[in-house]
Amino acid sequence: MPVKVFGSPASAEVARVLTCLFEKDVEFQLIRVDSFRGPKRMPQYLKLQPHGEALTLEDGNVTLVESRKILRHIAAKYKHQGYKDLFGQGALERASIEQWLQTEAHSFDIPSADMVYSLSYLPPDMPLDGRGVPAAGMHPSHRQKMEEMLQLFEKSRRDLGKLLDIYEQRLGEMEYLADDKFTLADLTHLPNADRLAADPRSARLIESRKNVSRWWYTISGRDSWKRVKELQRPPSAEAPF
Amino acid sequence: MPVKVFGSPASAEVARVLTCLFEKDVEFQLIRVDSFRGPKRMPQYLKLQPHGEALTLEDGNVTLVESRKILRHIAAKYKHQGYKDLFGQGALERASIEQWLQTEAHSFDIPSADMVYSLSYLPPDMPLDGRGVPAAGMHPSHRQKMEEMLQLFEKSRRDLGKLLDIYEQRLGEMEYLADDKFTLADLTHLPNADRLAADPRSARLIESRKNVSRWWYTISGRDSWKRVKELQRPPSAEAPF
Repeated sequence: MPVKVFGSPASAEVARVLTCLFEKDVEFQLIRVDSFRGPKRMPQYLKLQPHGEALTLEDGNVTLVESRKILRHIAAKYKHQGYKDLFGQGALERASIEQWLQTEAHSFDIPSADMVYSLSYLPPDMPLDGRGVPAAGMHPSHRQKMEEMLQLFEKSRRDLGKLLDIYEQRLGEMEYLADDKFTLADLTHLPNADRLAADPRSARLIESRKNVSRWWYTISGRDSWKRVKELQRPPSAEAPF
Repeated sequence: MPVKVFGSPASAEVARVLTCLFEKDVEFQLIRVDSFRGPKRMPQYLKLQPHGEALTLEDGNVTLVESRKILRHIAAKYKHQGYKDLFGQGALERASIEQWLQTEAHSFDIPSADMVYSLSYLPPDMPLDGRGVPAAGMHPSHRQKMEEMLQLFEKSRRDLGKLLDIYEQRLGEMEYLADDKFTLADLTHLPNADRLAADPRSARLIESRKNVSRWWYTISGRDSWKRVKELQRPPSAEAPF
């Protein structure tokens, strides 16, 4: 039985797992559910699995729902196939990878998701320099939301800035985060870093740091990630007519 | 529980059903399975359902696997919503729609699928005028396959030509096949007619007939079909990088 992944490739959790499966050349099935409601097309990636999570991996008797646990499972179980340095080659390397997996989960994941979320509300022409929401006519509840989103943006920018300063230093010493090779430590950053890179207002966090930029350029160019990006592209992005 | 469709929108059977669901504004879930095998990406739309068919509809207690039966089921059960003329408004209209549903299933479906199949083997520059396979160096088994495909093309061209002459006459009398309105009779032709229209070598069958052309232009412009076409586009068609 091949590995089964339930979920949408548009989810960061799912994208992380798919990238890992591609890196390890693991045969798998991706099961997606699109919902269409009445006249408006509304693809919603629904939850197939018992606990309602947006991601489930089934591999034989093993069922897992958290992406970073799944990364460790795949990298360990399929260590002899595909790209073999993903989980390091010894205890020391493994420990370093684990440390960066934790850093991503605890310090990168939330502020990067917050920043993308806040930017989705803030018009591209709204100044983000702390001058607040422009005084132009706006419904009070709308204005309040904008103020909240500006604050969330500012907080995530500050937190990410500090974190990426550490990354910048580390990536000045090593080519990748945990090792001199691409590992799970780097892979786990791909989905959210890609979202940051997609908007000029957040991409600056990457582009303004020489080593982080070089690292992002290298890891986002991996075939595994390009294949996930293809799967993420919604069918409505460019209609063929 | 929303209606569930198991299958790939790339399949003509599935495409027919999706078009009908969009026409009737029926809420539904589309469940797709993509398989990825090792380093090469090979999306294969697999069979989830017990009998192994490539299409299954579940609607409450009803489970159906044949597209034209599903069309009748959807059009009848959801007659009061969405586009209301799909299955006609009276017994006479219904009878005419049934007749054209039969004509499509028995006389259009196979030759149009055969033509598309044969053309997928025949190089675009190979003459199709009965002169046979050019004498250029070719492995005997390859040559034999080409000869077979040329014969299949020629047979399907002859059969479709005769059938479309009848359509041409009919569509000179009425705007659509069964009625003066778009109905299931027209809808059921969309997936295979679209494939014919996609290759200049088969599109001629449509384009050389004035009324068939006008009909094809009109029915292929329906929103429901455009939405199915979006879903059919493989994610690899145009990579975003």
